[in-house]
Amino acid sequence: MKEQEIIQPRVLKGFRDSLPAVQIPKEAIITTLQRHFASYGFVPIDTPALEYMEILLGKGGGETDKQIFHFTDQGGREVALRFDLTVPFARYLAQHEHELALPFKRYHIDKVWRGENPQKGRYREFTQCDFDIVGVDNAESDAEILSLMASSFAKMNVKHARFHVAHRGMFNTLLCNLGVENLSVDILRLVDKLRKIGETETEEQLLALVQDERTARAILSYISKEDEHEPFLTTLDRLVTLLGGEENEHTLRMRTIYSYLEAEGIEDRFLFDPSITRGLDYYTGIVYETFLEGSEHIGSVCSGGRYNDLASLYTKTHLPGVGSSIGLDRLLAALEDEYDYRAADVLILNTDEDRYTEAIKVAKRLREAGLKVALSFEPKKLASQYKWAEANAIPRAIILDQDEEGSFTLRDLTTRTNMVMSIGEAAALLKRNCLD
Amino acid sequence: MKEQEIIQPRVLKGFRDSLPAVQIPKEAIITTLQRHFASYGFVPIDTPALEYMEILLGKGGGETDKQIFHFTDQGGREVALRFDLTVPFARYLAQHEHELALPFKRYHIDKVWRGENPQKGRYREFTQCDFDIVGVDNAESDAEILSLMASSFAKMNVKHARFHVAHRGMFNTLLCNLGVENLSVDILRLVDKLRKIGETETEEQLLALVQDERTARAILSYISKEDEHEPFLTTLDRLVTLLGGEENEHTLRMRTIYSYLEAEGIEDRFLFDPSITRGLDYYTGIVYETFLEGSEHIGSVCSGGRYNDLASLYTKTHLPGVGSSIGLDRLLAALEDEYDYRAADVLILNTDEDRYTEAIKVAKRLREAGLKVALSFEPKKLASQYKWAEANAIPRAIILDQDEEGSFTLRDLTTRTNMVMSIGEAAALLKRNCLD
Repeated sequence: MKEQEIIQPRVLKGFRDSLPAVQIPKEAIITTLQRHFASYGFVPIDTPALEYMEILLGKGGGETDKQIFHFTDQGGREVALRFDLTVPFARYLAQHEHELALPFKRYHIDKVWRGENPQKGRYREFTQCDFDIVGVDNAESDAEILSLMASSFAKMNVKHARFHVAHRGMFNTLLCNLGVENLSVDILRLVDKLRKIGETETEEQLLALVQDERTARAILSYISKEDEHEPFLTTLDRLVTLLGGEENEHTLRMRTIYSYLEAEGIEDRFLFDPSITRGLDYYTGIVYETFLEGSEHIGSVCSGGRYNDLASLYTKTHLPGVGSSIGLDRLLAALEDEYDYRAADVLILNTDEDRYTEAIKVAKRLREAGLKVALSFEPKKLASQYKWAEANAIPRAIILDQDEEGSFTLRDLTTRTNMVMSIGEAAALLKRNCLD
Repeated sequence: MKEQEIIQPRVLKGFRDSLPAVQIPKEAIITTLQRHFASYGFVPIDTPALEYMEILLGKGGGETDKQIFHFTDQGGREVALRFDLTVPFARYLAQHEHELALPFKRYHIDKVWRGENPQKGRYREFTQCDFDIVGVDNAESDAEILSLMASSFAKMNVKHARFHVAHRGMFNTLLCNLGVENLSVDILRLVDKLRKIGETETEEQLLALVQDERTARAILSYISKEDEHEPFLTTLDRLVTLLGGEENEHTLRMRTIYSYLEAEGIEDRFLFDPSITRGLDYYTGIVYETFLEGSEHIGSVCSGGRYNDLASLYTKTHLPGVGSSIGLDRLLAALEDEYDYRAADVLILNTDEDRYTEAIKVAKRLREAGLKVALSFEPKKLASQYKWAEANAIPRAIILDQDEEGSFTLRDLTTRTNMVMSIGEAAALLKRNCLD
């Protein structure tokens, strides 16, 4: 009878568990980012996972509808799980505008949910990490977001991140010059696919859209770069020429931003990439994506831009801002091989139940010294205890086998060598070899 | 027209936003706990927020049904938001049992959702922090959970936490001795309410239940303590007498656990409190709750116990364990006044746009020294910049007003006093005064 009652353990399609080997680096990265964002004076907020559907989708509902998890709750309310952290942030700004001193610099790291069909590397539940500066529209705040992006990747030890920056206002200038500004939404969406579909396909689709070969070519030559690594200012100068040779507020903004990146000495991580447009309507100024050199196929791991008015659905207060979002799960998947983890720095073996109180005291002292210490709970065979240590990637073991007060055997489980030492010596040796 | 389109910004009943003043201490506490759990060799896991309803409720469904958020998803699956971290952990253990080396020591800190009617201090979304040891049933693992509880509260700087411990097996012995073991579920539930309804009411309800005055009195005298602060072993001795004077495996287990607490020097934080039974059926050994002295009215902030077979719904593998759960939101609400926060340690004022590149360089150096540094993005009036600093609890400001290379004015915004110093001197002074 019991057999019949067993429920097959499984998770929903597109969802997954995180085993410790995945969750340990994820938590480490989140803590690193939290501390780093705080060093820039950014503060954390949180919003509910569940919101009124009307808040998340606007009164219209629309296309996104199918992609989100929504239902009628016990009180008859139409509710939905948040599908990003931007829309809840806009609602939050409108709701708390009198409690916040602008400019407001916030970060938010938490899960979002989408009902889209799961593909390789895409899940229905994933962790977003957003950071925004709201209430100011200038080069200084644009540059701070870019600086925070570059330094965040450096803090995460990701040395091969390259930041591709463009300006939506400059692209709109081009479309105006060409007389196709009325098609801008479709053109933006098309250009956004360049990296995916290639130049030939993009040109064909552009031609079909604008119905004029010269115009299609002009757009294509604006967004194309012969030398992918062309220096930032060289690209900018070239684009100014393509736009008619005159500087305007957008090109000048980009020059000022670049001078701030130079002041910080991080300008070499940034490329001016005119093919970056970001599909979304609400961007009005700089836009950017981040690619990992050698792993470009996974797509951008950190994207965003400047928007003119984030919270207009919920308030009449004009709230310009600039922000960025790291796709943490995608980034972690790309870094998978680069993380090492261990459940503890040392395992205190259980060879004699009567010495367990001694084991507790040794564990306490080593933990106070900043070490990760596991205790064997049972006096099982040593082979079995070693096996457990290995399964948990624990590199050393302590054997409480000395009669002399305070000294014991420290065993290196990799080399299988033993050394007798005092607790102070063991703490010092283990500290030199611990991962944090 | 735009006016009509504005959607009233609001959150769902029972849900709430976290403003920075709440989220900053919450993140700090979570990071502290993560590091501390790791120091005991506990590893983190994660599970999906959304699961098959059958997994979360069992095939029967039942009473909990009304309390959980559930719906039919786009694929026609009956799904629900997790209402605790225990049931998903049981499912996780069954699903990954061949990937885990037992004993498995995990922690899990994340949100759960319940549809129950929100009361003061109770929300429909809250953060749980669970830690368990699975795969072993002995005093060593029981003691490690208690040790981890006590040291976690110490790490969180909560000095007034008191841990109330009892043993479900001992209570069951009493009920057997009295011949009312068939009523144990109802009696447990009733005793669990003692703290809420008082002794008189408990006695009346007990009497109605067991229909025998002597039995009701015997139960009441077992769970009552005249001296609330009676030492642990005194209580245990008294209870052994009430159980007939003979030690059994349960009373001996409690003595061994206590000897381990003594070895660690933390026994004075623990009381033997026979009124602790925990309502839930699945506990079989030690059970415990944690109260903050002076804030007992908020209820237990950390509870749990030993269970005999956690994952029996999903696997035939016998998985005994012991675990505990901190109600982080409730705990934080109780500590509210004790946390200080600031958005940054220092604000670099913007007095001259042409010096912004200098501001960037100073900010970079101070951040590298471990300080939290905010930049004023605009050259607004000083009064306005000071006001922003005050609203963000930033205690000091830097004015880049010196021509001499590398020296500037550091202003204490509280005392309104200025000092001219070098960047190295400023970093040292600010470090002495920073909160982390």
